[in-house]
Amino acid sequence: MDEGLYFFEQFSGHMVRGIKIDKVYYQGKTEYQWVQIFDSPLFGKVLFLDRKIQSAQIDERTYHEALVHPVLITHPFPQDVLVIGGGEGATLREVLKHELVSRVSMVDIDQELVKLCQEHLPEWSEGAFSDQRVHLVFGDARRFIEDSKDKFDVIVSDLTEPIEKGPSVYLFTEEFFKKIDQALNQDGLFVLQAGSTDPVYHDFFASCAKTLEKVFPIIRPYWVHMFSFGLPWGFVLASKKEDPLELEHEEILQRMERRGVKNLQFYESSLHQALFTLPPYLKAGLKKGKVLTDKKPYIWTL
Amino acid sequence: MDEGLYFFEQFSGHMVRGIKIDKVYYQGKTEYQWVQIFDSPLFGKVLFLDRKIQSAQIDERTYHEALVHPVLITHPFPQDVLVIGGGEGATLREVLKHELVSRVSMVDIDQELVKLCQEHLPEWSEGAFSDQRVHLVFGDARRFIEDSKDKFDVIVSDLTEPIEKGPSVYLFTEEFFKKIDQALNQDGLFVLQAGSTDPVYHDFFASCAKTLEKVFPIIRPYWVHMFSFGLPWGFVLASKKEDPLELEHEEILQRMERRGVKNLQFYESSLHQALFTLPPYLKAGLKKGKVLTDKKPYIWTL
Amino acid sequence: MDEGLYFFEQFSGHMVRGIKIDKVYYQGKTEYQWVQIFDSPLFGKVLFLDRKIQSAQIDERTYHEALVHPVLITHPFPQDVLVIGGGEGATLREVLKHELVSRVSMVDIDQELVKLCQEHLPEWSEGAFSDQRVHLVFGDARRFIEDSKDKFDVIVSDLTEPIEKGPSVYLFTEEFFKKIDQALNQDGLFVLQAGSTDPVYHDFFASCAKTLEKVFPIIRPYWVHMFSFGLPWGFVLASKKEDPLELEHEEILQRMERRGVKNLQFYESSLHQALFTLPPYLKAGLKKGKVLTDKKPYIWTL
Amino acid sequence: MDEGLYFFEQFSGHMVRGIKIDKVYYQGKTEYQWVQIFDSPLFGKVLFLDRKIQSAQIDERTYHEALVHPVLITHPFPQDVLVIGGGEGATLREVLKHELVSRVSMVDIDQELVKLCQEHLPEWSEGAFSDQRVHLVFGDARRFIEDSKDKFDVIVSDLTEPIEKGPSVYLFTEEFFKKIDQALNQDGLFVLQAGSTDPVYHDFFASCAKTLEKVFPIIRPYWVHMFSFGLPWGFVLASKKEDPLELEHEEILQRMERRGVKNLQFYESSLHQALFTLPPYLKAGLKKGKVLTDKKPYIWTL
Repeated sequence: MDEGLYFFEQFSGHMVRGIKIDKVYYQGKTEYQWVQIFDSPLFGKVLFLDRKIQSAQIDERTYHEALVHPVLITHPFPQDVLVIGGGEGATLREVLKHELVSRVSMVDIDQELVKLCQEHLPEWSEGAFSDQRVHLVFGDARRFIEDSKDKFDVIVSDLTEPIEKGPSVYLFTEEFFKKIDQALNQDGLFVLQAGSTDPVYHDFFASCAKTLEKVFPIIRPYWVHMFSFGLPWGFVLASKKEDPLELEHEEILQRMERRGVKNLQFYESSLHQALFTLPPYLKAGLKKGKVLTDKKPYIWTL
Repeated sequence: MDEGLYFFEQFSGHMVRGIKIDKVYYQGKTEYQWVQIFDSPLFGKVLFLDRKIQSAQIDERTYHEALVHPVLITHPFPQDVLVIGGGEGATLREVLKHELVSRVSMVDIDQELVKLCQEHLPEWSEGAFSDQRVHLVFGDARRFIEDSKDKFDVIVSDLTEPIEKGPSVYLFTEEFFKKIDQALNQDGLFVLQAGSTDPVYHDFFASCAKTLEKVFPIIRPYWVHMFSFGLPWGFVLASKKEDPLELEHEEILQRMERRGVKNLQFYESSLHQALFTLPPYLKAGLKKGKVLTDKKPYIWTL
Repeated sequence: MDEGLYFFEQFSGHMVRGIKIDKVYYQGKTEYQWVQIFDSPLFGKVLFLDRKIQSAQIDERTYHEALVHPVLITHPFPQDVLVIGGGEGATLREVLKHELVSRVSMVDIDQELVKLCQEHLPEWSEGAFSDQRVHLVFGDARRFIEDSKDKFDVIVSDLTEPIEKGPSVYLFTEEFFKKIDQALNQDGLFVLQAGSTDPVYHDFFASCAKTLEKVFPIIRPYWVHMFSFGLPWGFVLASKKEDPLELEHEEILQRMERRGVKNLQFYESSLHQALFTLPPYLKAGLKKGKVLTDKKPYIWTL
Repeated sequence: MDEGLYFFEQFSGHMVRGIKIDKVYYQGKTEYQWVQIFDSPLFGKVLFLDRKIQSAQIDERTYHEALVHPVLITHPFPQDVLVIGGGEGATLREVLKHELVSRVSMVDIDQELVKLCQEHLPEWSEGAFSDQRVHLVFGDARRFIEDSKDKFDVIVSDLTEPIEKGPSVYLFTEEFFKKIDQALNQDGLFVLQAGSTDPVYHDFFASCAKTLEKVFPIIRPYWVHMFSFGLPWGFVLASKKEDPLELEHEEILQRMERRGVKNLQFYESSLHQALFTLPPYLKAGLKKGKVLTDKKPYIWTL
C-alpha cells in the first residue's frame, strides 16, 4: 500500500476496500445525498453517492450498456422512453443511441447532482442533456408516474439502492411497479438495476425479480461483472409481451444497424443471450426472493 | 469497519482490500511458498499463497467447476487425466466426478502444502486424495512432463501466477505448452487458469491465449466472476481437435448423465456456451497478448 | 503497507490504526471479555481486551512502572497492598519489587483471562503469581472491598475503560472511591490508570481526577507517553496524607535502595517530579472534569 | 471505521494509520517536495510533506512552542535569530513573541511551500511573515550559512527528516553543525527537531545528539508527546555557554514577562525542567547514536 489518500468502503461489515485517490473534484451534500467525485489511478473518475460507489470511468459503459441495450433491443419499435434516476446522464446517452427513439423523459430527484455530474463527469453524459429529444424533470419519480398521462414504450430505472430514509425506498415495491405497468404501452418493457448478485448477498436482486413477477408476465434477470464494484451486478428486465430470450442473434444485429447503435464497448448481439444465463446458485437464490411492498419495502443495510 | 483482525491484499498498488479474519488455522512457509489458512465471516475458509488469495469456501466450486468441466465435457471419452498444481485437491475432486476417468495423475511441487490442505481444508478435496484412481506425484511439473512416457486425454493446469523466482514461471511458456501438446493424445485438450480478466489487467490472460495459439489449433478463452477475488477470472481451453463451441446443449446433458456428473453448483449444460462469450473489450484485449517464452516469460508484479 | 495480517483499531471514528500481526497466540471470549493475544513485529507480544489494546511487550514496563512506583514510593512504609484488575500480572510484578511489601491481594473478575496471560504472556508476570506474598481472589472488586475487613496501605487500580455493560463501569465512581478510602489505612494512597490525556479526548482522565477530589484531600494527576497506544496516558494518584510532589530526589533514591527496587526501565527518582508536570492545556482540561457517580457513571464510547 | 476518505501513513512497514479527511485544500508537488493540505475531523487542518505528517492544528503549538521557547528563554538576551526551514511560519510566530528579538532571518528552500502555507494555513503564521523584524530568504540553508557574515544569538532548525535525495540530508551532519557553531555569537544556542523518541526508532534522535556533542560543549536532548504524530518527539538543544538545566523557575518567569511572551498553550516555566527529563531507556538509547557526517549522513527510510 502506497502512502496517501484512499477512499474506504465497507462491504457487509466483513470486508473493506480502499481505492487510491489522486484528486478530489467535489465533496458535498445535496438536498438528497452525499456526493463525492474523485480521480483514481485504477478506475479513472469515480462517483460515490452516500459513500457507495456508483460509477467509474473504467467500466461505466459495461454498466450503462448492460442496463439500456438489452431492453431497448427487445422492444421492436421503441419511441417513447422514460429514465428514472440516472443522474450522471450515461443512461440517457445510451438510450439516445437508438435513433428511432423520438423522446426520452428523465426524472431525477436531485437537480444539484445532475448539475455536478454535468460539470465534473461530462464523459458520462457526452452532451446527452442537450439533445433535443430529452425532456428533463426534477422531482419524485413516483409522483411523476402517478401524475403523468403519457405512456412509454420502455422505462429504465437507474436508482441508488434503497437505504433507510433514502429517496428510492418506495421505488422498488409492488405498488410502484404496478404504476410502472400502467405507464407502459401494451408491448412495453421495464428494466431496473437490482444490486449485487454475489453468492452471499443477492437477496435484493432476488426480491426485485420476485416482486416484478407479481406484476409482469415475463421476468428476465441478468448479470454482468463490474470490476469497479468488485462484484457481479444484477438487472431485471420485465416485459408485457416481448421476450429477450426469443431474440435471434441476426435480428439483434439488424435492429442495432437499423437504429444506428454502434461503437459499443460491452454489449453486442453475440453477448445478448449469455447475459441472461445464470448459474445454479443464482437460480436457486432467485427463488428465495420476497415480494416488496410499501408496507414492507427493502431497506439496504451495510 | 469493525475493529479486529483483517488480511490485507493489494491490487496493483492502487487498491487494497481487507478481509475480516475470525480464525487463523495456519501460517507458515513451506519450501516453496508462504501459506496462510484462515476462517473469515464473509468467505468461510480461505487459502492464501504468497499472500495472494487462492481459494475461498464461498466460491471455490465456481472456480474449480469452471476449470474442470468445460474441458472434460468437450472431450468425448476422457480416461487419462493429468492435473498440474491444484494442491488443495478440489480440481482432483471435480475430475473424479467423471466416472469414466480411470486414472488421474496429479503433480504438485509442494508436498507440505498438499498435506496442510488435507488437514485444514478437507472440504476442498472431499476425500479425493484417497481415490484409487489418483496417482499423486510431488515434483516439478515440467520435469514430470518431460520424463513421462504416458499420454493424456486432458491436462488441467491449476497453478499460481508466475511471480519472480516462483515455481510456475516456466509453466506458462511456449516451450512448456509444446511439451503439453506432446503429452496429449491425438484428440487431447488442455486448460489452464489464466488470471484476471478485468478491464485493466488482463494482459496475462491475453498472453496465455496468444502463446497457446502458437501450439494448438483451437483456442477458447473463457471467464467467470469470482466474488472472493473481487475480479472476473479467466481460463484458456486449448484443443487439438474438439471444439467446446460446437457442443450442443443436449449432448452436454447426455455426457454429464452418462458420466455420472451431478450436484454441481456452478457449471451446467445451459451455462456452457455463455462462459465462452466475451465482451468486445476483452476480445480486443486478447489481440494484444504476447507470446511467452522461456527467454521472455511472464513475471507477475503487484 | 505490506500485504498480510493486521489488527485494526479505531480511535473516535476519525482514525484507524493497523498493526501488523505475525502470529495469533489466542483469540476467544471469556465470561467477561473478548481476549486476543498476538505477536507483532513492531510491539512484540500484545494483548487486546474487547478489541482495545491493553499492553504490549515494547512498552508495558513504561505503563506498569509508571502505575506502581510513584504511589508506592510516596508511601513511607507500604506493607499491605491491594491490586484491582491487572490480570496480566505485571502490576503485581512491580509491586513485589518493593521488598518491604509483605502481602499483596489482587482481585480480578476474570479468572480465565489471568490463566491465558500466565500461559501466553509469562513475560508480564515473571513468576509473580507464585510469590508467597500474593493473595489472588477472583471476583468483583467492588464486592471484595465492601466485604473485606482488611485495611491497605496502597490500592492500585489497573482496570479496563468503563465500556457499556463492561465490568468496570462502577469502579470509577464517587461511591466506589469512598469505599476505597475506607479500605485504606490513615496514611493510605490510591492510584488508578485513567485513560488518554491527548488534547481532544481527556475528559475521562479529567473526570477521574474530579471525582477523586470529592473523596481525597490530595489529588495528583500525571502522565506518560505510551508508544504502543499511540497516545499520552494518564494516571491519578489520590492520597490521604502523603504528597508525591514533596518527595525529594534524594529521599526517593534512598527509599528505592532500602526496598530493593532496581533494574527499572522507565521510572527513576530523577523522573518522579517530571511525571506530575502537566502542560497548560491539560491543566485547563482537568478543570472541566465531571463528578462520576453510580447514577451517572462514565461510559466509554468509541 | 466510517466509510470515506482517509490519509494512510506507514510506520516502519509494521503499522499503518488512516486519518479521516473531510476536505482537501491542496495536493501538488513543488520543486522540492510533495505537499498535501487537508482538513480532518480529529486534528483540524493538517500538512503532509512527501506523505509524512508535519503539523496539525490540534497540537502544532505543542511542537512549535517546545521547539522555540526553551532555547530562546535559555539565552539571556536574544536579539538576532535565524530559523532554518519552518515553512509554515509557526516557528517564526513563536520566535517573534520574544519582544527583544529585533531581527529574525528565515531560510527555507521551498518558496512555493511557504506561499501555500500562507494561503491555506494562516493559523500557523498568524501574520508572522508581515512582521517588520522578519527577513525571509529562499534558498539552501547550508549555502546561506556559509555565505552569511551575520552572527546569530539563536539558530532554530525546523527541517523535515533527511530522506533519500531530500533537501535536508546535509543539514544534520557534523560539517554543517560546525558552520552553525561559527555562525553563532559567543553565547549562542542552537536547537533542532530530531525525530521520534519512541522505544524502537530513536536512532536519528540519538545520532543528532551524538553529532552535536562533537561540536558544542553543552547538549540537552528533550522531548514532548505529539498526539497528531502518535509518537513522542525529540529535540536537541546545543549551547556554547548557557545551560537550560541551570535556569530557575523564577528566572524563566521573569524572562517571559520582560520579553512579553504570553498566552502559550504548551510551554511554561514550570514545565521547563520536565521537558529535559528522559527515562532510562532513552538515556541508554542516546549512547548508541552515531556521528553523522557528509560522507555518512542519516538517510531516513520508511
